[in-house]
Amino acid sequence: MSVSVNREIHLAARPQGWPTTDNFRLVETPVPTPGPGQLVVRNQYMSVDPYMRGRMNDVKSYTPPFALDAPLDGGALGEVVASEADGFAPGDIVLHALGWREYALLDAKGARKVDPTLAPVTAYLSVLGMTGLTAYAGLLDVAGMKPGETVFVSAAAGAVGSLVGQIAKLKGAAHVVGSAGSAAKVERLTALGFDAAFDYHDGPVRQSLKTAAPDGIDVYFDNVGGDHLEAAISSMRPHGRAAICGMIAQYNDTEPAAAPRNLAMVIGKRLTLRGFLVNDHGGLRQTFVREMAGWLRDGSVSYDETIVDGIENAPEAFLGLLRGENLGKMLVRV
Amino acid sequence: MSVSVNREIHLAARPQGWPTTDNFRLVETPVPTPGPGQLVVRNQYMSVDPYMRGRMNDVKSYTPPFALDAPLDGGALGEVVASEADGFAPGDIVLHALGWREYALLDAKGARKVDPTLAPVTAYLSVLGMTGLTAYAGLLDVAGMKPGETVFVSAAAGAVGSLVGQIAKLKGAAHVVGSAGSAAKVERLTALGFDAAFDYHDGPVRQSLKTAAPDGIDVYFDNVGGDHLEAAISSMRPHGRAAICGMIAQYNDTEPAAAPRNLAMVIGKRLTLRGFLVNDHGGLRQTFVREMAGWLRDGSVSYDETIVDGIENAPEAFLGLLRGENLGKMLVRV
Repeated sequence: MSVSVNREIHLAARPQGWPTTDNFRLVETPVPTPGPGQLVVRNQYMSVDPYMRGRMNDVKSYTPPFALDAPLDGGALGEVVASEADGFAPGDIVLHALGWREYALLDAKGARKVDPTLAPVTAYLSVLGMTGLTAYAGLLDVAGMKPGETVFVSAAAGAVGSLVGQIAKLKGAAHVVGSAGSAAKVERLTALGFDAAFDYHDGPVRQSLKTAAPDGIDVYFDNVGGDHLEAAISSMRPHGRAAICGMIAQYNDTEPAAAPRNLAMVIGKRLTLRGFLVNDHGGLRQTFVREMAGWLRDGSVSYDETIVDGIENAPEAFLGLLRGENLGKMLVRV
Repeated sequence: MSVSVNREIHLAARPQGWPTTDNFRLVETPVPTPGPGQLVVRNQYMSVDPYMRGRMNDVKSYTPPFALDAPLDGGALGEVVASEADGFAPGDIVLHALGWREYALLDAKGARKVDPTLAPVTAYLSVLGMTGLTAYAGLLDVAGMKPGETVFVSAAAGAVGSLVGQIAKLKGAAHVVGSAGSAAKVERLTALGFDAAFDYHDGPVRQSLKTAAPDGIDVYFDNVGGDHLEAAISSMRPHGRAAICGMIAQYNDTEPAAAPRNLAMVIGKRLTLRGFLVNDHGGLRQTFVREMAGWLRDGSVSYDETIVDGIENAPEAFLGLLRGENLGKMLVRV
């Protein structure tokens, strides 16, 4: 290999509340060499995702917390540059879980080859990958959306939210409402086919949602929590369902969130609130990829990407994601 | 008929916060006479239930609010004293929905005959009636309890809660925990076969639950809300389910209750919170009655009743229920 230095991002300190660039450190290490059954990948793109904020806390959860003074990790895609593993050769493009670094040393079972001629490679990190499956599984499997229903999705201009709204329309939703954090995003939602959209800064979410869906909603896809979840509960019709994917409004809170204050409504309206992780829905992957690939081919689904250049800017990309500066999927071109 | 005066309880004023006896009024009216297709029932027992508190507010919900200056209503049982309806004759014992009065004028379709030789008549208002079905449907259908699981139920010495715990054991739960509001109730839970029980006054519910179920819980049957729901979410194992039946801790709140402060845990643990009303589960009634009648016959299920005498004391019985003064089902002998 011609380059002998690998740059990676370490967690330098655990954030209290909102993270800053001081919580991260750029570290230079030698480019690794594969052992038996391993490969080395030069990363081309890495994903930054809201759930990573949770892993920066020292709290037991479904995934272990990030270690201090060690590289962060997360979804990434790159080219194999060295392989001691059967079935992988230099030049292969692979998807794996060791982002936040220029060169990743992987066991072969942690890598999955993708075909760069079928779709732009970034699609494997977003619309055709975990992001798309999250939208698809949450809406159809967790919330069980049925044709004719009204759907509300928060953070609707984000990577997952924008797909939720489009999939809902393609699956026969009668009315799809999205909330987002700027007028430009609201405009984008309308272009994507949302029936109504609002900027949550424009007034109480509860009121904006009632205006956007005057007859109530059946399904809520929650990426935000807090006042958005409270508004959704308030607007839900009997037997409504919420698929709870994320609560980005609360990830940086140092005090527990107060909302939703109307949780008792779940009884009289017989509501179901269900948290989920995409990992539990791998059984849907084949169906999802086949269907989504078709929608992409015929232009029924559009997706946005916000790409930040340079591994050294990955912390800033992540902070921008938490501030809602992305349209669609936030990626770092490594 | 020899008695010409009917006494009934009216809602005199809507309670703000905790109700008092001033919210009720005893009113004398003539004993009604049945028209075609109607019957008159002399009530023997009436049920007082926590959900009635919600109907005292002027808020749209799944049942209309009680009207001011009109009799309250609710589950009751009595003897037909006059009938102009086919299939009903004086002396029949019927179950119906017009309690809070001595004499009820009913359309025949609002009455269901019960057999007083099969079980004590009060059982039709409790263990074999809506109370029992609520416990059965909530635990097995809504929460989907499976053998080997750990179950937690709040207000466990109440009518519904005490049945939830016993049904859970009969259906193979590995460990059943109940919370209640006094040492005497905790003792009663142990006698009923609960594996562990605690008085929620003895310390933070979260800590008491962790002690009572150190390996966590799979199912929570919620009658209380508030800190009990928060403790349950905290103790839940992955894929845990809560059947939300009531939130008695909040019924008299004048400010909206804060959310469980750990609601975001539903994502990582993939929890389901599901509100329900027994009315949606009528399809289970026959199975339930057959199974429960068997358990009563062979002594597998015990049930408690707290009986207050006199229609004039019905408001006090209801207030006592809200204060937790009942063991098992709270009934008024009219």
